[in-house]
Amino acid sequence: MEGHHHGKTEVAARSNSSNKGGLVLRVLALILTVAATIVTATNKQTKVVPLKVFDSLPPVNLPVTAKWHYLSAVLYFLVTNAISCAYAAVSLLLTAANKGGKSKSLRILIFVLDALMVALLFSGIGAASAVGVLGYQGNSHVRWNKVCNVFGKFCHQMTVSIGISLLGSLAFLFLVMIPVISSA
Amino acid sequence: MEGHHHGKTEVAARSNSSNKGGLVLRVLALILTVAATIVTATNKQTKVVPLKVFDSLPPVNLPVTAKWHYLSAVLYFLVTNAISCAYAAVSLLLTAANKGGKSKSLRILIFVLDALMVALLFSGIGAASAVGVLGYQGNSHVRWNKVCNVFGKFCHQMTVSIGISLLGSLAFLFLVMIPVISSA
Repeated sequence: MEGHHHGKTEVAARSNSSNKGGLVLRVLALILTVAATIVTATNKQTKVVPLKVFDSLPPVNLPVTAKWHYLSAVLYFLVTNAISCAYAAVSLLLTAANKGGKSKSLRILIFVLDALMVALLFSGIGAASAVGVLGYQGNSHVRWNKVCNVFGKFCHQMTVSIGISLLGSLAFLFLVMIPVISSA
Repeated sequence: MEGHHHGKTEVAARSNSSNKGGLVLRVLALILTVAATIVTATNKQTKVVPLKVFDSLPPVNLPVTAKWHYLSAVLYFLVTNAISCAYAAVSLLLTAANKGGKSKSLRILIFVLDALMVALLFSGIGAASAVGVLGYQGNSHVRWNKVCNVFGKFCHQMTVSIGISLLGSLAFLFLVMIPVISSA
């Protein structure tokens, strides 16, 4: 606990130099998670597929729709991105209001929440990617057939939103790293 | 950059007080990721299942085995845990050798790698959980049948290892938070 007063001046000088980079990253994180949320939520594809309703009758052509809320992993992915972009917006306002890092407890709260967003976003990306791989390749061992040969546009749009979300989660990851790296 | 010398003494005092907690957490992270790796790698279940080989013949009873390398998500989960426990072991030695946080660049390197482990582990947990949910519940929209009614023991052991891995990833998350929180 010695050197506490000197530490405070150091922290203030430090946060001034890293504040700009932090703000840019936070704006990036906001834009990317908003984009991933929109791209996922608006993803929808309807295809006419031959379906066997009765075994004795020939298959009937029925329209089938692929939507984000049909797969719990994609739903989870959407929720993680929605939470992250809401948090990015709030934390952006708080960081801008807390100019020069005056309130240290607020800065630490934001750091902790940034780290939680990294964990949240990466778990969502993992979940959506795992289901995406199954959609593209299927799995013969558990007899899950690939579905992306039918719903190609839906799968492609999901891949794009996973990529955008990954960039957003990297922005949060760098936001977590800045306060420690900038102290070097 | 003013206050840099004072900062150094502060950092040393700080790292002394948080070093013990950090070491305990790192040992925990090591034990938990090793356990998750072993529980996943040794997971195997063989069941005799009636399979239709030819449509004209009655189903034949054949032994079917569930193993971690049959599902890419479980393979990825295993790899993330293996990387994390190898890293936890190396970083434990480095942290112990760097007593009192003498080398600041080493501490920052370890902090950055800790943060990467959080991202890696959470993506693996997300992937394995997404496939786990499909295994337990199936999905009628994409016609993927649940498989955990057949391979109950395999699914149960996977659930346990995901839980252990989650605890391990939380240990890494706290390791990331310590240097910033302890500066308060």
